[in-house]
Amino acid sequence: MIQTAIAGQTHSLTERYATVRALSLALAAPLSDADATVQSMPDASPTKWHLAHTTWFFETFVLRDHVAGYALHDERWPFLFNSYYEAEGRRHARDRRGMVTRPTLNEVRAYRAHVDAALVAALPTLPAAVQDLVALGCHHEEQHQELLVTDILHLFAENPLEPAIWPAPRKVPVAMPGPIGWIEGLSGIVEIGHTGDGFAFDCEGPRHRALLSPHALADRTITNGEWAAFIADGGYREARWWLADGWNWVKTNAITAPLYWEERDGGWTRFGLDGRRAIDPAAPVTHVSFFEADAYASWAGARLPTEAEWEAAAAHHDPAGGNQMDTAGPVEPRPATGPAFFGPAFFGNVWEWTGSAYRPYPGFQAAEGAVGEYNGKFMSGQFILRGGSCATPRGHARASYRNFFYPHQRWQFTGVRLAKDL
Amino acid sequence: MIQTAIAGQTHSLTERYATVRALSLALAAPLSDADATVQSMPDASPTKWHLAHTTWFFETFVLRDHVAGYALHDERWPFLFNSYYEAEGRRHARDRRGMVTRPTLNEVRAYRAHVDAALVAALPTLPAAVQDLVALGCHHEEQHQELLVTDILHLFAENPLEPAIWPAPRKVPVAMPGPIGWIEGLSGIVEIGHTGDGFAFDCEGPRHRALLSPHALADRTITNGEWAAFIADGGYREARWWLADGWNWVKTNAITAPLYWEERDGGWTRFGLDGRRAIDPAAPVTHVSFFEADAYASWAGARLPTEAEWEAAAAHHDPAGGNQMDTAGPVEPRPATGPAFFGPAFFGNVWEWTGSAYRPYPGFQAAEGAVGEYNGKFMSGQFILRGGSCATPRGHARASYRNFFYPHQRWQFTGVRLAKDL
Amino acid sequence: MIQTAIAGQTHSLTERYATVRALSLALAAPLSDADATVQSMPDASPTKWHLAHTTWFFETFVLRDHVAGYALHDERWPFLFNSYYEAEGRRHARDRRGMVTRPTLNEVRAYRAHVDAALVAALPTLPAAVQDLVALGCHHEEQHQELLVTDILHLFAENPLEPAIWPAPRKVPVAMPGPIGWIEGLSGIVEIGHTGDGFAFDCEGPRHRALLSPHALADRTITNGEWAAFIADGGYREARWWLADGWNWVKTNAITAPLYWEERDGGWTRFGLDGRRAIDPAAPVTHVSFFEADAYASWAGARLPTEAEWEAAAAHHDPAGGNQMDTAGPVEPRPATGPAFFGPAFFGNVWEWTGSAYRPYPGFQAAEGAVGEYNGKFMSGQFILRGGSCATPRGHARASYRNFFYPHQRWQFTGVRLAKDL
Amino acid sequence: MIQTAIAGQTHSLTERYATVRALSLALAAPLSDADATVQSMPDASPTKWHLAHTTWFFETFVLRDHVAGYALHDERWPFLFNSYYEAEGRRHARDRRGMVTRPTLNEVRAYRAHVDAALVAALPTLPAAVQDLVALGCHHEEQHQELLVTDILHLFAENPLEPAIWPAPRKVPVAMPGPIGWIEGLSGIVEIGHTGDGFAFDCEGPRHRALLSPHALADRTITNGEWAAFIADGGYREARWWLADGWNWVKTNAITAPLYWEERDGGWTRFGLDGRRAIDPAAPVTHVSFFEADAYASWAGARLPTEAEWEAAAAHHDPAGGNQMDTAGPVEPRPATGPAFFGPAFFGNVWEWTGSAYRPYPGFQAAEGAVGEYNGKFMSGQFILRGGSCATPRGHARASYRNFFYPHQRWQFTGVRLAKDL
Repeated sequence: MIQTAIAGQTHSLTERYATVRALSLALAAPLSDADATVQSMPDASPTKWHLAHTTWFFETFVLRDHVAGYALHDERWPFLFNSYYEAEGRRHARDRRGMVTRPTLNEVRAYRAHVDAALVAALPTLPAAVQDLVALGCHHEEQHQELLVTDILHLFAENPLEPAIWPAPRKVPVAMPGPIGWIEGLSGIVEIGHTGDGFAFDCEGPRHRALLSPHALADRTITNGEWAAFIADGGYREARWWLADGWNWVKTNAITAPLYWEERDGGWTRFGLDGRRAIDPAAPVTHVSFFEADAYASWAGARLPTEAEWEAAAAHHDPAGGNQMDTAGPVEPRPATGPAFFGPAFFGNVWEWTGSAYRPYPGFQAAEGAVGEYNGKFMSGQFILRGGSCATPRGHARASYRNFFYPHQRWQFTGVRLAKDL
Repeated sequence: MIQTAIAGQTHSLTERYATVRALSLALAAPLSDADATVQSMPDASPTKWHLAHTTWFFETFVLRDHVAGYALHDERWPFLFNSYYEAEGRRHARDRRGMVTRPTLNEVRAYRAHVDAALVAALPTLPAAVQDLVALGCHHEEQHQELLVTDILHLFAENPLEPAIWPAPRKVPVAMPGPIGWIEGLSGIVEIGHTGDGFAFDCEGPRHRALLSPHALADRTITNGEWAAFIADGGYREARWWLADGWNWVKTNAITAPLYWEERDGGWTRFGLDGRRAIDPAAPVTHVSFFEADAYASWAGARLPTEAEWEAAAAHHDPAGGNQMDTAGPVEPRPATGPAFFGPAFFGNVWEWTGSAYRPYPGFQAAEGAVGEYNGKFMSGQFILRGGSCATPRGHARASYRNFFYPHQRWQFTGVRLAKDL
Repeated sequence: MIQTAIAGQTHSLTERYATVRALSLALAAPLSDADATVQSMPDASPTKWHLAHTTWFFETFVLRDHVAGYALHDERWPFLFNSYYEAEGRRHARDRRGMVTRPTLNEVRAYRAHVDAALVAALPTLPAAVQDLVALGCHHEEQHQELLVTDILHLFAENPLEPAIWPAPRKVPVAMPGPIGWIEGLSGIVEIGHTGDGFAFDCEGPRHRALLSPHALADRTITNGEWAAFIADGGYREARWWLADGWNWVKTNAITAPLYWEERDGGWTRFGLDGRRAIDPAAPVTHVSFFEADAYASWAGARLPTEAEWEAAAAHHDPAGGNQMDTAGPVEPRPATGPAFFGPAFFGNVWEWTGSAYRPYPGFQAAEGAVGEYNGKFMSGQFILRGGSCATPRGHARASYRNFFYPHQRWQFTGVRLAKDL
Repeated sequence: MIQTAIAGQTHSLTERYATVRALSLALAAPLSDADATVQSMPDASPTKWHLAHTTWFFETFVLRDHVAGYALHDERWPFLFNSYYEAEGRRHARDRRGMVTRPTLNEVRAYRAHVDAALVAALPTLPAAVQDLVALGCHHEEQHQELLVTDILHLFAENPLEPAIWPAPRKVPVAMPGPIGWIEGLSGIVEIGHTGDGFAFDCEGPRHRALLSPHALADRTITNGEWAAFIADGGYREARWWLADGWNWVKTNAITAPLYWEERDGGWTRFGLDGRRAIDPAAPVTHVSFFEADAYASWAGARLPTEAEWEAAAAHHDPAGGNQMDTAGPVEPRPATGPAFFGPAFFGNVWEWTGSAYRPYPGFQAAEGAVGEYNGKFMSGQFILRGGSCATPRGHARASYRNFFYPHQRWQFTGVRLAKDL
């Protein structure tokens, strides 16, 4: 799972641990006990569960397994806060997480404090391999931070009162982006996958050669304004743009627009962390499914990038650039504000659906033990997304990062970059 | 809906209003914001919703309709807190009530205070017909108090930690009841239905003649110990005791015992408001469905009473007697403690399933307007229960009271009294 | 199950057996092997299954149990053709009956011939109690004849080509019926239930006293023309006419008219055994559910009769009169053609929904053994219908006959007679 | 869709057309009208539908569109027999195909004769592009022949009597195969996809370069005996071998063995076209899902091949070799009988699940018009299978042929060849 240890960097690991753990609490700060408890759908989890599960990860795989004399904070809680690790035994049904009103949010905060104290105390003495587990836990928690944000947004969207979690940020008016420009990609053999320097999840490797055909990628993602034109042109009403499964999904669920979009007084609005507001036509469209992304690309006479094309293009851009999450607040995709749109835009704003199914790279081997369940067992039925979003903690994303969701899912900050054959 | 006005009794109505409203708050007192927000199944509602809906009833049908100048506490809330009154317009989907984390429990308490102040101020000047609506609202709130108790119990039962809401009361050891005694009922023509004195729901009338065949009723309800014997005899494994719909329900849901029963260390336990504890073999069995009640009766060579038989027998007993709810706390069915078991036992402890489908009495007419939706529209597919339970606010029950649930439902405090033909 | 033996009438029983068995074959005559095999919904059964199941009944309860040396036609078939008799062991899942393409229709005909020969040969020597079982089997087969007709109609309605099973009969133009007249019923104590003379199903007894309130019954059933007026007045669009369960059924299933009705070229048509044709406004409406019947009655300011009211009124009419099934052909409800409308109209044309839930009469005891499963175990959730229909074999109906279906079911020939309190 | 025209070969096309059309009728020959009408699940279609749909294809895209004066056999039938071509308008719901008892099997045979006569008459005068459509229609019908066989097998497996469609062939005892041998595959850049010579479906192209890592393929597919060992080792009871979606499928559907396997008298049996018989431990396992194939590979410490690995290895083998369908009869996978096991075994016996998701090749463009819906719109959620099966008409398969099914589907003759990294 971790390609290269970062041992010997205890001090910075302690700092990193503290930073990561603090952001989770900051994200939960505006929430009530009830906000943090309710589960809006089986795919989403309560904030309280995210806070506790990430803590359980450290408690289980670091403190319980590697710190002599550590006593579990509560012996009954692992049943509640294990997510899907079969090797860790029975666990609470995923779709019933929202039933657990107790422990309370404050009790979960106390759990976090308890584990934090034990872990920070133990950290300097842990062997390198266990410090790697701590580093893994930090990355794991960052993943859950993004989920926490998107899950709480989904919950608040279910409230007919449409409350805002944070006040809206001041908006800076920006010009509409010009037409899409096309940037020719590399062709022939390229190398993709994690290089071995620094942290990566197991599914990002092994680094390997991939073969690219002549192609070009769009120099930006699709905007809300462009998506409104797709809708106006009957995009959701014509089967010919859609994959068969996608068309069935559209019909069954009466899909007519991205998630959280509603027409009010003749114009499109979206629900966000700052409540319901008019869409910004210049901002990247988000909360679209793979099916929608693919249909849009067909309508536009283009296609989605493969993950290898995307990674080859993004490899030399700064993965910490662009609109990513720095602090707790009402993140959302923002329009580009300058000529550097293309560069940073590979990272941040929206996860970009690729046309690649999530499958193992050549030579992939799942890690042994419970941690080995991390990614490999999800390698069917899902599609790869790349690049990170406005809700990805800055520093979490990499060019080799492989995010994955089912083709109908769209409660993440997901968007569309077009590609075409040359 | 209200057979006889109780006008001119403003002072006592104010007191009654205050008493009723206070009990709701007391029931919610041990609950967190999260406890009060989550919905455990579509049949159940969050505590917060009960607190707000009962308030909406007074706000809508009394203050809005009859108090000049009253301004709604929040114009967006009727959409949230209307239950099923079609005439009152669109409303939030019943099975999504648990999504509403805001308003908070405290904001709902403030809503209650706002409406209470307005209503108490207005009460002395309201005409008799509107005072009747206030009285109706009090009875309505008492119904919701019982639901609040059974709904919160259902929610806590979903928590793998099995938390208690209240500490367990001190148990007084009691002797096991002796064998069931049979008390011959009246036969021939009797009168049942509300007499016209005092309050009643519309479905309790008109008072009318009913014809009883020779029969006897058991002098007490079935105990946990007797139910355990039914289980041990294969009661849940043999189709012949069951109605066809009941057997299908047993198979589909893998039913093997009353709701909240679990075998632990070789003995039966039940989950209650005071957590999980061993069953009391002398106490009345509860949380059984009509299907179970009917199957038990078949197994026992008996049948369930008709509602007319029950009412004729109970008519001269004190409806305010027995184990009913006086204050907020861990109510549950209790064994009889003295020779007066039969008398008070018609009221309190458990709602008793009858074999009568819930249908209108001869001459029944639903009231006009939204309030007319109160009971009549539920007159299909449900069975009548009689007598009140340990969670029924004392004073709420009457001999003519018709409670009704679907034959598979069992999260109320429901039990079984046998009958037989003579 | 059989109240009074008809022993000693061997000769007429043989004739009756032959007559009943012949009608089943005649009903199946126009059907192909495929027509007779397919199952259109779990509630319905294939024609081939009806033909075989009724034969299995005789083979099992008469030949197997009471005729020494009888060998089963095929030992594997009881598993296929038992319907719901738990005591007779495992059986094929009801909703998979349509999967059984073999045995073929002709093989089932051979099964019938085999059993018929054995039974007719044995009949003269059978004791009276077993002859009673034969008589029961004839009544049982008549029930299945009606189901055969309604089930095959349901199947053909699923075919987009809308084929007719039989050619349409010649229609005689008739005058529209005048307004409903009201006929006052008996009030006070009446006796209902089977008298003990002749055959009856177990649920029709015991005969017992019932108490009627002052009331009147309509002198005819509701017509297609009247139903069209209900639709035109928004009957299916206003919640206030509907029971809550009924309104939910309307919304969930997008119900807008009786089953088999469709608007074509601006007028209402219905699908029948003779294909799709315009509705006859003077004929009784049919294929309406209890929910629809109840809603219509509410809209009309009336109610449905109770079963006791109906039986008391019908008791002195000829149960073999009216439009019932004499031969195989395109039966359907027909308008009255003379002044005797009221009399015969209690029987035939359409089963009339009553407002009475299907529950046991006072003193009812299910028979012992497998045959005892006949009716009693269905006594929850269903409503009583009375009178017989155009698809009821003439001679099968009685004043005491209790038919029952769930409130949403409407593929039988079901209609509406109004009642009102006086 | 057709890479290279085969114009100028009218004579051989007429012969080919006749051969293909005759095989369909031969496959249906042992079936009754009912056998040919019933639909056992939404994924499967009735034989009658296959016979009619393949005919509709020729009637629509050849006769209607390109033969002046051709009158549709029946104007109402296209609604029934269009499969999924959105551009061809509304059509009958796929899961209701089994409701259509009329037209009968014989009427569909007459439809076939009508279209055959018209098409054979017109064929010599059709332009090359339309002759290509005829050739496409022949390949299309061959696909449906395989579906016809697997669909009718599925239907017969639903019959508790387990009838055989054809008598069992004489079995030749064979030796058990030895351990799997591993054959190193090509690595580096290879070319895959249709070469442009002869017919291919659109999704098989464009031919393109692919990059292979060092790997080896098993020299045969997994046998029933090996699969029984997997079961005996708890293969279906341990989550660790399974993809998460696969494990969920196993739990939800209580999967414990391949489709049609049942334990009888302590040994494994399978249901086949010749009824239920003991499994042949030497024969290739079949009727396993992708999930099962993947789990087996994990258990065996191997993986599934990619489609490029498979195609590179199979490219120089004879696609018309091996156990494929020559005539109508009880086809099933057979053990190898000689040293040439590896060679022919790439084709025939069982479709081999690959680890490749079904996605477009670089440069793929769907064809215009209704025919363009042929393959491209199914490119999500499915996995590629290669090689053809015992039910594939000989001559239909190619090295470039891409079959695809959802990972849970297993009613086709699907099996497993292992691969491993070197």
